[in-house]
Amino acid sequence: MGTENKVIRCKAAVAWEPGKPVSIEEVEVAPPKEHEVRIKIAATGVCHTDWTYLYDCEKGVYSRPFPLILGHEGGGVVESVGPGVTAVQPGDRVIPLFLPQCGECEFCLSSKTNLCFKNWGKTQQGVLADGTSRITCRGQQVYQFIGVSTFSEYTVVPEYNVAKIHQDAPLDRVCLLGCGVATGYGAAINVAKVERGSVCAVFGLGAVGLAAVMGCKAAGASRIIGVDINAEKREIAKKFGVSEFVNPNDHSKPIQEVLVEMTSGGVDYSFECVGNVALMRAVFESCRAGWGTCVIVGWNETGSLSLAPIDVLMGRTLKGTYFGGWKSVCSLPKLVEDYMNGRILLDEFVTHTLSLEEINHAFELMTHGKSIRSVIKM
Amino acid sequence: MGTENKVIRCKAAVAWEPGKPVSIEEVEVAPPKEHEVRIKIAATGVCHTDWTYLYDCEKGVYSRPFPLILGHEGGGVVESVGPGVTAVQPGDRVIPLFLPQCGECEFCLSSKTNLCFKNWGKTQQGVLADGTSRITCRGQQVYQFIGVSTFSEYTVVPEYNVAKIHQDAPLDRVCLLGCGVATGYGAAINVAKVERGSVCAVFGLGAVGLAAVMGCKAAGASRIIGVDINAEKREIAKKFGVSEFVNPNDHSKPIQEVLVEMTSGGVDYSFECVGNVALMRAVFESCRAGWGTCVIVGWNETGSLSLAPIDVLMGRTLKGTYFGGWKSVCSLPKLVEDYMNGRILLDEFVTHTLSLEEINHAFELMTHGKSIRSVIKM
Repeated sequence: MGTENKVIRCKAAVAWEPGKPVSIEEVEVAPPKEHEVRIKIAATGVCHTDWTYLYDCEKGVYSRPFPLILGHEGGGVVESVGPGVTAVQPGDRVIPLFLPQCGECEFCLSSKTNLCFKNWGKTQQGVLADGTSRITCRGQQVYQFIGVSTFSEYTVVPEYNVAKIHQDAPLDRVCLLGCGVATGYGAAINVAKVERGSVCAVFGLGAVGLAAVMGCKAAGASRIIGVDINAEKREIAKKFGVSEFVNPNDHSKPIQEVLVEMTSGGVDYSFECVGNVALMRAVFESCRAGWGTCVIVGWNETGSLSLAPIDVLMGRTLKGTYFGGWKSVCSLPKLVEDYMNGRILLDEFVTHTLSLEEINHAFELMTHGKSIRSVIKM
Repeated sequence: MGTENKVIRCKAAVAWEPGKPVSIEEVEVAPPKEHEVRIKIAATGVCHTDWTYLYDCEKGVYSRPFPLILGHEGGGVVESVGPGVTAVQPGDRVIPLFLPQCGECEFCLSSKTNLCFKNWGKTQQGVLADGTSRITCRGQQVYQFIGVSTFSEYTVVPEYNVAKIHQDAPLDRVCLLGCGVATGYGAAINVAKVERGSVCAVFGLGAVGLAAVMGCKAAGASRIIGVDINAEKREIAKKFGVSEFVNPNDHSKPIQEVLVEMTSGGVDYSFECVGNVALMRAVFESCRAGWGTCVIVGWNETGSLSLAPIDVLMGRTLKGTYFGGWKSVCSLPKLVEDYMNGRILLDEFVTHTLSLEEINHAFELMTHGKSIRSVIKM
């Protein structure tokens, strides 16, 4: 290809500093180094976590180095590969992954977890294996958010952070499997392992929460109670399988008491899809004694949650998940096919389709509760 | 029998008020009412929880009504039964149970839990199904601690709070299965479901902790790290299967960091056998990301434990247990046989054998860390 081994100049949304809108800039994307892949991004979802690291850092998340290119829920096509890459080749449709699957570590070799900490310290700091980013702007290194940066027309990621997917997959839909939808859906299927006939509650009906609802439904839950303080979520939640909608603002008593009453003792499975430590306790307390399982899905890397030990002693289980328990490289292709075969919903998550230039608008829609997912098409 | 349908006058250790030694008194034990069983207690263990409710209430536990007869780890022989009782008859060797198994509720019918809340509210308040205790002293009703009261020569419990055991079982040993040993052993076997070859850590090496160690060993753990601030526990812990002993006082860094270093990332299973909320966090953080499971075994009904959500999100699981996951009535007979067949240790827990008159001494031995279990022989 004409761009192989060359620096590519392209557009990207650069976050120069925390708390300020991102700015559309021309950036330079270096060729992939050994075991790296350069991807032409076709589309990317805008995840609440992107917004959090830009506008709300130190509230539940640690500040990352700036300037930064956010975006971690993308789909694209391999433009070129660095030396040693065998898993993908130019032209392949792929989803870049913030969670690697190196295939060799004790985590990858265990069936009990999807985690893989390959280069974790570096990607969390916005750089790749050699300690640098592949992206520069105005002569300055631009950090790659969790090693990915899909708010750019091109990016470079390690080869074990790339899932090769079906060549006909619509990238402006399956990109959502790169984070939110896979996370929520997997939280129900893989982590809670929701059983047929069970009663579930999902707190927070953004994309992650609605995907958890979809997972509960796929698993055969008999009741799925959706909980959100945004009354507008009631209608869309039904599409995904919510059987009852509860708005905590409609009740004077704590939401966990409302749920315990509604279910004569508590739900079998509950999901926290917000990342709020106070809510986590309520979600845990919404579970039934004896076997209730609460899964923490919402991201929070700085807070502390509190629980009453007696609620734990009475047989409730607390679990958490990162990327829904999916081993990333090998699971994503199957999820893409599940979508293409109609087994999971993706179209219904996309409330807005915008251009890269409109990305700040996507953040506004999100913070005003007007979107489930905005997809940026490059 | 000569005493059937009659009030029995006998000795008991009455706790007249919190914070004061118990007093040996003559008490009256009424005949059993419908679906109740009167038991002649042969022996009883002295559990740390008994001490806590007497001397340390409001520190982790709620105050119970006084006067009170403590003791909940007993073995005895059925003296008489009330109308409707079919499961046991006079002369049967039994273990009275603070956890019922009614066999009919949704909990008893579920394979996922051992809990049963039959008459829970009442027994927690020290009375039986009709709202009264069967024991009086000096004309005053004496409450039965969690519905049991084994610090008495006789007591009355509901029929679904009685396990009929092997007629040759030595009651001064198998009484320990009424609480501590069953709880710790089951925490490893039933709740954590420790796997062969795994690495475990047990925090707090009293009877419950040592029983958890025994469970880890029975499950085939490859390393069992015992943690206690009492250096004298090192030797006895070896008998139960501890492979490494760690005294937090020997280290300047937090104990969870010590364990994470010792195990290159954390243990597979950790057990909190103390009931201390600050320790609970350390025990949780001693677990490995990806699949580490922390089981809370130590009793605490008023505190709050705190966890970092990120530790949960990284794949650690928090569970708890009440009575080690054993369905009480049907499991105890099997545990008794396991002891009689040499599959579990009990003798090794008994460091002191005392008379009922020496019960305050048993509390002293315990609080000075000089005993594992004192057994009171009537």
